[in-house]
Amino acid sequence: MPPLPGADLLLPSEPSQRAIARELYALAKDQPLISPHGHVDPAILAEDAPFPDPARLIIVPDHYLTRMLLSQGIPPAELGVPTVDGAPVETDGRTIWRRFAAHWHLYRGTPSRLWLEQTFRHVFGVTKPFGPANADEIYDEIAARLAEPAFRPRALFEKFNIETLATTESPLDDLGRHAKLAADGWGGPGGRVITTFRPDNVVDMEFDGWAENVERLGEVAGTDTGTYAGYLDALRSRRQAFIAAGATSSDHGHPTALTLRLSAAEAATLYDRGRAGTATPEDAEAFRAHMLVEFAAMSIEDGLVMQLHPGAVRNHNRWLYDRHGRDVGGDIPQATEYLHALTPLLDAYGNDPRLRVVVYTLDEYTFTRELAPLAGGYAALYLGAPWWFLDSPEVLRRFREAVTESAGFYNTAGFVDDTRAFCSIPVRHDVSRRIDAGFLARLVAEERLPLDEAAETIVDLAYHLPKRVFKIGERLL
Amino acid sequence: MPPLPGADLLLPSEPSQRAIARELYALAKDQPLISPHGHVDPAILAEDAPFPDPARLIIVPDHYLTRMLLSQGIPPAELGVPTVDGAPVETDGRTIWRRFAAHWHLYRGTPSRLWLEQTFRHVFGVTKPFGPANADEIYDEIAARLAEPAFRPRALFEKFNIETLATTESPLDDLGRHAKLAADGWGGPGGRVITTFRPDNVVDMEFDGWAENVERLGEVAGTDTGTYAGYLDALRSRRQAFIAAGATSSDHGHPTALTLRLSAAEAATLYDRGRAGTATPEDAEAFRAHMLVEFAAMSIEDGLVMQLHPGAVRNHNRWLYDRHGRDVGGDIPQATEYLHALTPLLDAYGNDPRLRVVVYTLDEYTFTRELAPLAGGYAALYLGAPWWFLDSPEVLRRFREAVTESAGFYNTAGFVDDTRAFCSIPVRHDVSRRIDAGFLARLVAEERLPLDEAAETIVDLAYHLPKRVFKIGERLL
Amino acid sequence: MPPLPGADLLLPSEPSQRAIARELYALAKDQPLISPHGHVDPAILAEDAPFPDPARLIIVPDHYLTRMLLSQGIPPAELGVPTVDGAPVETDGRTIWRRFAAHWHLYRGTPSRLWLEQTFRHVFGVTKPFGPANADEIYDEIAARLAEPAFRPRALFEKFNIETLATTESPLDDLGRHAKLAADGWGGPGGRVITTFRPDNVVDMEFDGWAENVERLGEVAGTDTGTYAGYLDALRSRRQAFIAAGATSSDHGHPTALTLRLSAAEAATLYDRGRAGTATPEDAEAFRAHMLVEFAAMSIEDGLVMQLHPGAVRNHNRWLYDRHGRDVGGDIPQATEYLHALTPLLDAYGNDPRLRVVVYTLDEYTFTRELAPLAGGYAALYLGAPWWFLDSPEVLRRFREAVTESAGFYNTAGFVDDTRAFCSIPVRHDVSRRIDAGFLARLVAEERLPLDEAAETIVDLAYHLPKRVFKIGERLL
Repeated sequence: MPPLPGADLLLPSEPSQRAIARELYALAKDQPLISPHGHVDPAILAEDAPFPDPARLIIVPDHYLTRMLLSQGIPPAELGVPTVDGAPVETDGRTIWRRFAAHWHLYRGTPSRLWLEQTFRHVFGVTKPFGPANADEIYDEIAARLAEPAFRPRALFEKFNIETLATTESPLDDLGRHAKLAADGWGGPGGRVITTFRPDNVVDMEFDGWAENVERLGEVAGTDTGTYAGYLDALRSRRQAFIAAGATSSDHGHPTALTLRLSAAEAATLYDRGRAGTATPEDAEAFRAHMLVEFAAMSIEDGLVMQLHPGAVRNHNRWLYDRHGRDVGGDIPQATEYLHALTPLLDAYGNDPRLRVVVYTLDEYTFTRELAPLAGGYAALYLGAPWWFLDSPEVLRRFREAVTESAGFYNTAGFVDDTRAFCSIPVRHDVSRRIDAGFLARLVAEERLPLDEAAETIVDLAYHLPKRVFKIGERLL
Repeated sequence: MPPLPGADLLLPSEPSQRAIARELYALAKDQPLISPHGHVDPAILAEDAPFPDPARLIIVPDHYLTRMLLSQGIPPAELGVPTVDGAPVETDGRTIWRRFAAHWHLYRGTPSRLWLEQTFRHVFGVTKPFGPANADEIYDEIAARLAEPAFRPRALFEKFNIETLATTESPLDDLGRHAKLAADGWGGPGGRVITTFRPDNVVDMEFDGWAENVERLGEVAGTDTGTYAGYLDALRSRRQAFIAAGATSSDHGHPTALTLRLSAAEAATLYDRGRAGTATPEDAEAFRAHMLVEFAAMSIEDGLVMQLHPGAVRNHNRWLYDRHGRDVGGDIPQATEYLHALTPLLDAYGNDPRLRVVVYTLDEYTFTRELAPLAGGYAALYLGAPWWFLDSPEVLRRFREAVTESAGFYNTAGFVDDTRAFCSIPVRHDVSRRIDAGFLARLVAEERLPLDEAAETIVDLAYHLPKRVFKIGERLL
Repeated sequence: MPPLPGADLLLPSEPSQRAIARELYALAKDQPLISPHGHVDPAILAEDAPFPDPARLIIVPDHYLTRMLLSQGIPPAELGVPTVDGAPVETDGRTIWRRFAAHWHLYRGTPSRLWLEQTFRHVFGVTKPFGPANADEIYDEIAARLAEPAFRPRALFEKFNIETLATTESPLDDLGRHAKLAADGWGGPGGRVITTFRPDNVVDMEFDGWAENVERLGEVAGTDTGTYAGYLDALRSRRQAFIAAGATSSDHGHPTALTLRLSAAEAATLYDRGRAGTATPEDAEAFRAHMLVEFAAMSIEDGLVMQLHPGAVRNHNRWLYDRHGRDVGGDIPQATEYLHALTPLLDAYGNDPRLRVVVYTLDEYTFTRELAPLAGGYAALYLGAPWWFLDSPEVLRRFREAVTESAGFYNTAGFVDDTRAFCSIPVRHDVSRRIDAGFLARLVAEERLPLDEAAETIVDLAYHLPKRVFKIGERLL
């Protein structure tokens, strides 16, 4: 029987590879989803309220979509993206939806298109092709679905077969939504929805409001952050609170991968300058770099897996930032050096099996030169999945083609969806599983790996490996 | 009926992809050629004289060919490349032709070979394989063709189905050849042969004779370039003259992509130093960088599309430069940074829909990290086709594989042949169309894009997109 | 008749490409092996003693294997890797073998796995799949083979169809083992086993013991290395001795590709500082860079082909270096710049056909930007095969896909196995031949190259080209 339409999505078209890929994909397809790194708002699952209208759910918050339209001259305000100064923006969901649909051809060949089409089909049961002609009809279909109880967040969570979903919170967060989830039997250590410790806004002195954030950190933690030692205590204390809320990892988004080992006195000097408002950009970079090594030391104590996300130049599009603020599509990657940057951290703890550092990149031109040799040579290092601009079929494939030969499969960390778009979680994992199936199928077709080992590998990549690397299901306390 | 030999050139060999690629290529194949960026001497079309002998037409001026022979120890003088000091070089066309043919194996797998073979076959009707054995016979066949009226430049232009061809001139050019073309009904705004404003020799203080060029610029423009303000006036005035001669774009070949926004006073200081002969290399770089932002401002006023060609280290082969001068194969690419370099220009005008900047690269290791995210995030930016060393089947394919996922198809600018070799224009466009057909066919075969959308896309890439991006056929005055 | 199992290893699976690839591979398969760059201990062939037990032969000295286990937390001491301080390590071959086999899944998709499997099968006749279940049995099979006379090094050398094998020696080596080989009819100019002049330990002031090495160099050469002039004389004299022992090339392993042309006086000053122990890291880098240009000048005189291996950061894994010393898997590549770095050398001798410089890289992100344009534009430059971390099926393929279009096939230098693992030599060459067959098959299938030319090319790449580029079989004296 021929497969259903769409069943071979992303699988190699060469028949011998496709046959093997189908077989491998079938093994991975229904594995529970492990999502150890994402940005879904925990309130969605804590409150389990119905989603808003289709445009507000799908278009307005998705900067992949709005930046593409900006690149063709359509300003974000016309798509409902809120302004910093409250200047009016389009508010009619259907108008936004139509405007978006009118430019659907811009997304040909992009992962955004793929994610949307698959979400429409598999989450909402829409079978008509999206585009200007069907936009209204599809809007209505989705709106109708969203009103049904089966499309509430928790129902979808179960339909999506998610085993564990990690959200990301600042140390300043009171973790109240996670407490609610735990009370409902959805959260806490080993639970279905867990948190991640993301301290950037209290580590990066160049972050707007860092000094105030550090003050608040002291209040939340019940320690005096007037000194560097108190600051470290506060961080340690918040990590414990996060672990109690289920966290198994921390996440660090830095402009570069620089690490640095300062004495406590040197670090305290930088800290004091930061609080006094006299820190230079170099001070800020040194402090961030030093704190990565501090966090590694804390990880060895408390067991949190470290995630390092370097390489994004934030708010590169100045006009966009001035009008619409952070995280609306104005960030751009920059060249990222890992080898020398990570040396201080690796010299200190690189071979310590108690430490686990998952390193991501936005710069694929480090795959074979730096990242794969590092991950294949240090016990503490794992390679994270291609991230953000690189979370796409072509790069997922190039990632395996590039890193496997030096790092193997088992120094990679498994797929992370890294998304705020809850409804897109299944398709993102599905894309990764399909690409891995295709890559492994080629190894089999070229007689480089027997089918039984490829079969074991695809299940490991889809399920066991991310679970193990990120300690999902483990209780750190 | 099976396709003719050669019909499947460059199409993927996997049967399902090949069948789709044939279908797509058939749609693109006969689209008129839009050549918005090239270096054909306009005198060729203005005078419409017969071409010289085959060696002088095809080998001597083609530095792709002569540099490959130099790399194997055959000096350019033996191939007839003129010397700076007038030292004698080989002058016999047939000897040059035979010498070249004797080393034909060196070109296996290169685009040069592909272009030549297709040119021999499709322009000159030569069906024998080129090589040492048939060299003489093929020389005679081509020489015979070149004597025929149907092989005069204008006749070939029509045979090639070129809709518009842009040449490149310095602001010092009197545009006389374009005036002749216009008088003959071949040129002028919206015409078949148009010019491009290429001001490098009056912008780059490190260019031989910059100060004299700036003097002459004043004379040609009828303004006093003794001051920076007069210099800007002269440039504005020449842009108007170029627009009147059909130009729709300017072209800027810089060693780096650096842009800089100086005050008029700062710029004037650099300008004066340049004229006084006291400018440092840093001054020259700052002035070039500043002028890019100035040209962007002028573009917003007068509508010329900006093209930025950074990354070539000119005259790297010192021995070659000393003996044979510029543009004979001695340039080599260097690593090119775009993100920080373009920031001043983008901060000023990056989201202004009146500006259009087409950025090229010789450094493919910026495709996914910088170029695609930039083009997919700024209204003013478009990605130019892979250029020079990168204008080749493998890189054209990698370009689509790399940039489409972040920038889509519609933030790219279409193919430009960038060539001085008039007879190679059709095959260069044909290669690009074949590679795009193959790339789109894979998307279709992997169920990522429906055939009807792929069909629309290939025609857009071949024809509509370059026409639109470069304003071909538009009248800016 | 269908091919034997494993016959299509690494060939493209698309049937039309596979058919062509089989045909091409059949032509290359049995060509004699030319191994112009490797690290086999010449004592192995000089003494022709039986090999040690399987673990000591195959696992303990192979840092590709031990680093992968370290990356998963298994320390090298558990695999028998000797310690610097003599601290005890595992010594039981069978225990090491079992420990390795227990982690066999880590090597899926790596060249190490491929090399081992093919070595087991084709050298030792083991047909069972390797892994924990069969580890003991395979250990016994191999141990039994190793005791047979047919598995002595010289017998294997002949079975492997090696025509010439180059080893690598320091100028301080007395070349005694090569003298023994010559006496046995196995060595000397034009012989089966030849040496390579590798002066890093007397050139690189940052090398442990450089000053003492320079002293010893004087003793070995019988010159006074107390002065820079005497040092150069000593090097010239040792090169003559190496040439007399069959060397046709020198090899230079530098952290960067930097070259520099100092005056004799400047160089002497650096040299004196080095001997006085007052040289800075910058002095050391300048001296290394200068010496590359000196060695190029010597090459023009004495005919040795220069090999430049830049880009490895040695001993990056500090913990590993402290416990186990050099060359045990702790080196990592770094970004490598070639264009500006090589300029002084190329300005001096880049177009001199008497010089031949083979340049390697660990940074594939220079292939199309710098390396291919350089090799395709300078008479003296050749591109070496992908090296070390890049000696793998995927990169060998990407190498051809990237460099051929600018450099062709004939500015590359042919495959070098670069290995200490004698038994892996045949499979390494075989992998390269298979990948080249697949690449050429695609060119044929896409109608870019006729089959007869592809057939000539594959034999050139496998045999004639490395022989010619490295002057194998030539007598330089």
